[in-house]
Amino acid sequence: MAVSFKQRDIISIRHFNKEELLYILDLAKRMEQVDHTNILKGKVLASLFFEPSTRTRLSFESAMKRLGGVVIGFAESGVSSVSKGESLSDSVKIIEGYCDIIVLRHYLEGSAQLAADVVDVPVINAGDGSNQHPTQTFLDLYTIQKTKGTLEGLTVGFLGDLKYGRTVHSLAYALSYFGAEMFFISPPSLRMPRDCMDELKDRKVRCHENESLLGISKKLDVIYCTRIQKERFADPVEFEKVRGVYRLSKSMLEEIGIKDDLKILHPLPRVDEMDGSLDKTDFAVYFHQARNGIPVRKALLAAVLGAVE
Amino acid sequence: MAVSFKQRDIISIRHFNKEELLYILDLAKRMEQVDHTNILKGKVLASLFFEPSTRTRLSFESAMKRLGGVVIGFAESGVSSVSKGESLSDSVKIIEGYCDIIVLRHYLEGSAQLAADVVDVPVINAGDGSNQHPTQTFLDLYTIQKTKGTLEGLTVGFLGDLKYGRTVHSLAYALSYFGAEMFFISPPSLRMPRDCMDELKDRKVRCHENESLLGISKKLDVIYCTRIQKERFADPVEFEKVRGVYRLSKSMLEEIGIKDDLKILHPLPRVDEMDGSLDKTDFAVYFHQARNGIPVRKALLAAVLGAVE
Amino acid sequence: MAVSFKQRDIISIRHFNKEELLYILDLAKRMEQVDHTNILKGKVLASLFFEPSTRTRLSFESAMKRLGGVVIGFAESGVSSVSKGESLSDSVKIIEGYCDIIVLRHYLEGSAQLAADVVDVPVINAGDGSNQHPTQTFLDLYTIQKTKGTLEGLTVGFLGDLKYGRTVHSLAYALSYFGAEMFFISPPSLRMPRDCMDELKDRKVRCHENESLLGISKKLDVIYCTRIQKERFADPVEFEKVRGVYRLSKSMLEEIGIKDDLKILHPLPRVDEMDGSLDKTDFAVYFHQARNGIPVRKALLAAVLGAVE
Repeated sequence: MAVSFKQRDIISIRHFNKEELLYILDLAKRMEQVDHTNILKGKVLASLFFEPSTRTRLSFESAMKRLGGVVIGFAESGVSSVSKGESLSDSVKIIEGYCDIIVLRHYLEGSAQLAADVVDVPVINAGDGSNQHPTQTFLDLYTIQKTKGTLEGLTVGFLGDLKYGRTVHSLAYALSYFGAEMFFISPPSLRMPRDCMDELKDRKVRCHENESLLGISKKLDVIYCTRIQKERFADPVEFEKVRGVYRLSKSMLEEIGIKDDLKILHPLPRVDEMDGSLDKTDFAVYFHQARNGIPVRKALLAAVLGAVE
Repeated sequence: MAVSFKQRDIISIRHFNKEELLYILDLAKRMEQVDHTNILKGKVLASLFFEPSTRTRLSFESAMKRLGGVVIGFAESGVSSVSKGESLSDSVKIIEGYCDIIVLRHYLEGSAQLAADVVDVPVINAGDGSNQHPTQTFLDLYTIQKTKGTLEGLTVGFLGDLKYGRTVHSLAYALSYFGAEMFFISPPSLRMPRDCMDELKDRKVRCHENESLLGISKKLDVIYCTRIQKERFADPVEFEKVRGVYRLSKSMLEEIGIKDDLKILHPLPRVDEMDGSLDKTDFAVYFHQARNGIPVRKALLAAVLGAVE
Repeated sequence: MAVSFKQRDIISIRHFNKEELLYILDLAKRMEQVDHTNILKGKVLASLFFEPSTRTRLSFESAMKRLGGVVIGFAESGVSSVSKGESLSDSVKIIEGYCDIIVLRHYLEGSAQLAADVVDVPVINAGDGSNQHPTQTFLDLYTIQKTKGTLEGLTVGFLGDLKYGRTVHSLAYALSYFGAEMFFISPPSLRMPRDCMDELKDRKVRCHENESLLGISKKLDVIYCTRIQKERFADPVEFEKVRGVYRLSKSMLEEIGIKDDLKILHPLPRVDEMDGSLDKTDFAVYFHQARNGIPVRKALLAAVLGAVE
């Protein structure tokens, strides 16, 4: 059966099979060829951000507008009726009458699914608490495919806070379709959740857990780095101790040894996980990664709104 | 003389006669036939919300964009020069140079009229404190007309906080053109203001005041429900006492008895005035009502900007 | 060599020579002839306001949209990733991937230059702390040229807070190209900074410093008035003392004597520097000045994006 995204909700990367993932990546590639079209003329996107965001919100809005569509919405919950005690369910039921598609960022897990359940227009999850952020995973995959030439058979290291990093959980799941070998490198207190590891093992992924890059670094095709937040540690001393180990710099990578064509991704924002010395190297693709939000979100909007084959 | 809204301010529903009300409702109906046009291409709406709003702001902006126009503005006063002590009068005099029409929500009564007095572009009042909110009344009328088939000769119950509910005062006034009989059902401390009642009696409206739906419910064609706010009561015990009486549910309506074709409206947001059990019944039209903001506001924008006959 | 603004950053008025200033003013004049075009169709402006603004933000956004372009961005830093500790440099490097041009207002001096240094898309400085605000100077010049018929050989009085008023420093510099004679009228504690005065003297400007308009007023073709902020004074009594002296009213001007064709400008917002009695006189051009933000910013956007000859 042909792949179709028309009128579908985009809630979790787990709802898509390999063929569907590749369809969106291929469409994103085509979207990069054209700067501006009118294929979404007359369509209205409701961009509902109950939490602050730069990257996700601005790239969704830019993508929609570059396809000829228009955007309504808000960038924080303070300006909506939520401040008057309205339920999310009521809010989205009303707003669906004003738009053709909803992009929702909300601080509660499950909120995107809840919204999708009560409205008829398609809902794209732009992050629901620490749960899912599927469009980030699509752009992570797109960036890996573009910079490595393929998604198949890669060795990928995930670095930093693997416990709370929702982007890590989703990307690891998605890469399991492509025969990846995975190294999970974190402080003991921030290891991958057990259910994520069990899921990967069920899917026959070769998984390893480590506390540092030492002895692994030369095997990696990709390092997916994440932010370690001070607030995760009860004891600030503990934080300071682990911080250095998970902080990448040019000299540190030279010292431990890496592949020549290693690519380093990061969902951003970073604080100091990657030293500025890395930014201009060929390893660093995190800024390209952020910019890939445009073709990937164009692809998702166009596909869900039925504007492409 | 032909009805014309061209370049007129929309400040209070009291500024319009019956023929004018019907003209906008008819235009709104026509607006529902077309999803997207370019009749407002090149026009700029300044959407100035000094107070938070979801429904009104998003539906105005969606309406403007669906007609091909563009929108500038703000969703809260914190991001404007008001925070530097600028007068509303100065703000709108400057902003009128940037736009073709102003939609203004402001927390002070009389602010919309003040703005209209100092600028040359038309001003639409999107709510000035507890005073007026005429576009809400237009969409309330539109919803009643659409769901009941007519506006003439209806029996309408207003329920809840009738003292502070500006939408109630305006709708009651507007319905007085159409021979409605009205029941005002509220706790004693939240009764309709005396001047509103006097005005209705001057206009020969058959009015009644009650403390509950008991004995009245079977007569009603429409119930217009409003939110009772805890803050209105000095004593929380008083609030809890009245709360239940003015809270509609499917079983409560079945118990007291209603007409088969009763329609229940609510300007929303609700907190718990209407139980979720009502939402899927044919009585509940409040979500449709909210969505009617689009055709009604399209009609007002197009009429005021002179884009329709 | 022909003047070209294509892909140039607009950081400080000091980066432009006389011919370039006149080019933009001439282009702004042409922009006033056309209300709406599509010369920026498909172009995306990122409007990044880390500080509140009405005039600058709304006029930039209106200008962009009237030229057929679209806008993404934010009106305050709270809704961006800055609240997660992201550096300005990282933010703009990511956002440049979403847009064709950046307009930046930021509270730190030097921020616009920093942004311009790290991104490839052109950056327009919409105010960086107390440093520069070049588009304001362009519209001040445009207003003087339009209302006086020429920029050459005028006698201009600058009034109020000349120490912290960045618009004063920039306008004085720009007028030095046109043989202006300048009077700087302020309380002793708010005099022009020494380096600004030295720069003007180096450029052979006839400069004078005064504490009131008495004895000068009849010479002036233009008064450029600014807001005196209470916070600048350690002692509120001092503030109250000077306040009256620098507050313009119709009767005060009649008393001290002025030229018949005097024009009074003010960058706005005002608090009470100019009495309402002035607003309807021919002297007052400050509201026209604010509105001139549209043609001037249209000209800058079109020139930098290469959409005009």
